[in-house]
Amino acid sequence: MTRRVALLAHEGFPDRAKTAVGVLRYADDEPVAVVDREIAEADPDARTTDYLDGVPDAPVVGRVADCPDFDALIIGVAPIGGGFNESWRPDVRAALEAGADVVAGLHYFLNDDEEFAALAAEHGGELWDVRKPPDDLGVAEGVARDLDTEVVLTVGTDCSTGKMTTTRELYEAAVDRGVDAAFVPTGQTGIVIEDWGIPVDRVVSDFAAGAVERMVRERADHDYLFVEGQGSIVHPAYSAVTTAILHGAMPDALVLCHEAGREAIHGYESFEIPNPGYVGGLYESLAEPVAPTEVVAGALNTKHLSDGDATDALDRYRSQVGAPVADPVRDGPGALLEAIL
Amino acid sequence: MTRRVALLAHEGFPDRAKTAVGVLRYADDEPVAVVDREIAEADPDARTTDYLDGVPDAPVVGRVADCPDFDALIIGVAPIGGGFNESWRPDVRAALEAGADVVAGLHYFLNDDEEFAALAAEHGGELWDVRKPPDDLGVAEGVARDLDTEVVLTVGTDCSTGKMTTTRELYEAAVDRGVDAAFVPTGQTGIVIEDWGIPVDRVVSDFAAGAVERMVRERADHDYLFVEGQGSIVHPAYSAVTTAILHGAMPDALVLCHEAGREAIHGYESFEIPNPGYVGGLYESLAEPVAPTEVVAGALNTKHLSDGDATDALDRYRSQVGAPVADPVRDGPGALLEAIL
Repeated sequence: MTRRVALLAHEGFPDRAKTAVGVLRYADDEPVAVVDREIAEADPDARTTDYLDGVPDAPVVGRVADCPDFDALIIGVAPIGGGFNESWRPDVRAALEAGADVVAGLHYFLNDDEEFAALAAEHGGELWDVRKPPDDLGVAEGVARDLDTEVVLTVGTDCSTGKMTTTRELYEAAVDRGVDAAFVPTGQTGIVIEDWGIPVDRVVSDFAAGAVERMVRERADHDYLFVEGQGSIVHPAYSAVTTAILHGAMPDALVLCHEAGREAIHGYESFEIPNPGYVGGLYESLAEPVAPTEVVAGALNTKHLSDGDATDALDRYRSQVGAPVADPVRDGPGALLEAIL
Repeated sequence: MTRRVALLAHEGFPDRAKTAVGVLRYADDEPVAVVDREIAEADPDARTTDYLDGVPDAPVVGRVADCPDFDALIIGVAPIGGGFNESWRPDVRAALEAGADVVAGLHYFLNDDEEFAALAAEHGGELWDVRKPPDDLGVAEGVARDLDTEVVLTVGTDCSTGKMTTTRELYEAAVDRGVDAAFVPTGQTGIVIEDWGIPVDRVVSDFAAGAVERMVRERADHDYLFVEGQGSIVHPAYSAVTTAILHGAMPDALVLCHEAGREAIHGYESFEIPNPGYVGGLYESLAEPVAPTEVVAGALNTKHLSDGDATDALDRYRSQVGAPVADPVRDGPGALLEAIL
């Protein structure tokens, strides 16, 4: 049965509510409402479709108590620092009192909150802290390359270049074509969408590749796995997570994700992003001694460009990457999928 | 005042007691005894110097209760899995009842043991779980390359190639020459020796580079920092830790560590170790976009070879690495230090 979800996104929908938007766009769940008091106050008749194209239509309400019946409340907005905003407490309380589950990807764990834990126990709901990795992880065994499945990994020139979106679009397009495929999430939005997965950035570094390997093994009965990458190997802070995924998943093919026009690492502006073709080659070189692979396609995020500029940017990107390229949102993932299958 | 330490190493001294041997060889502490009941039973007059060259002379006794006065008991042996061996409980109890501190690098945290926590509180000793990272770590800011200190990092073709030993030998030789230098440990043995540091392999992968950056910043008032590397970028399980250290420390120079004759990743025998020169180049390529560096010297572990074979192996290694090489244990670290200073 399809899970009915309410999406908490106070003061954040849609631009600062990445998880809520990801669930609307990609999850199998049925959204009963988005909860954003700022929007609901300004427009009591607001709908999701007023803000986003191609998502299920649902009302935007001011509080959880005003939502139609639902099975789970998903915290769909991530404040800087990942804390719990105390102004959300009445909403979470209302969800738990209605017997619903609550799903959150915060650094603050709902399970450690005495009131929420007690309410969940009393009303039979579950608290799922997506960012808490399992306790029983271990080091990678180095076996992913021996699995009988084609592993496709998205890698990037930086964070926030569209890896999650590209992975998900490729996966959905593959399934639409009748390919036996699975999606392997590695970050909180993907995990909430898939209702399964391990947040690799929260795993101790010794076990990070092992966590990825475990997910790949669990889904290895599919013909194709689309693994969501994280960060970048040229990122001064997050490259360890990226390396863990590259060596843990041992992909057969890479899709290189880049944002058109971005020249420096976001938030680390003194670090230039090298030519994307060079970055792609570096991924291949780093993979080579462990499990050889190659960049078979490039995904370019052109959302800030006009159609004409996007075409120019794609031409340039194609020559840099030396493989088929597309913007999977603007153009659809078809051309990229062709390069993979 | 020099700290007096007892070194617990039941059934492990010296070959399976890496931390005990590291402390004997490199720490400023005064060892009062090694505790190994197997050795003490076989030879009640056993001494450390019966087993190791160039370490302080101290008795090997059967239990902590038989040790001369000491300030701290160091768990110097790491069982597979990193658990606490219950047969050690009377020894830890005796140390705490004598008012001493207890230092351990186990996965099992002494601070979580009710009896030990109560005894430490009662008698004024401290429990230090070396493997527990600080709670206040964050992401790297990407600033290590701007510090006014020369950062030298050991990197390897595999785990257990001599990175800790090489780093420590270089650091001590530099200090002996009057260089203002500091040692930056990243693993438990180095941390116990230095009585300071963060176990990078136990830090969540998002913060691993940040942990290294923090240590480097704390020691940046020295002219040279010798940073202990971990794992290898060609290791299928531990490459994330390696990458975090490379990008977090942003070294000015690399020393490539390899064990003569080792052709496959230890414990992952289906993974060949590439030509060490290729691995060195891969470290340089991965560092380049974040903070350029180069392999300035190579350390070769030749402990399993005869003198003649070691000379041959060093010649071969020199041509592979394209830089001065030496076995810092057999030959001393002088030639390597020359290449660095």
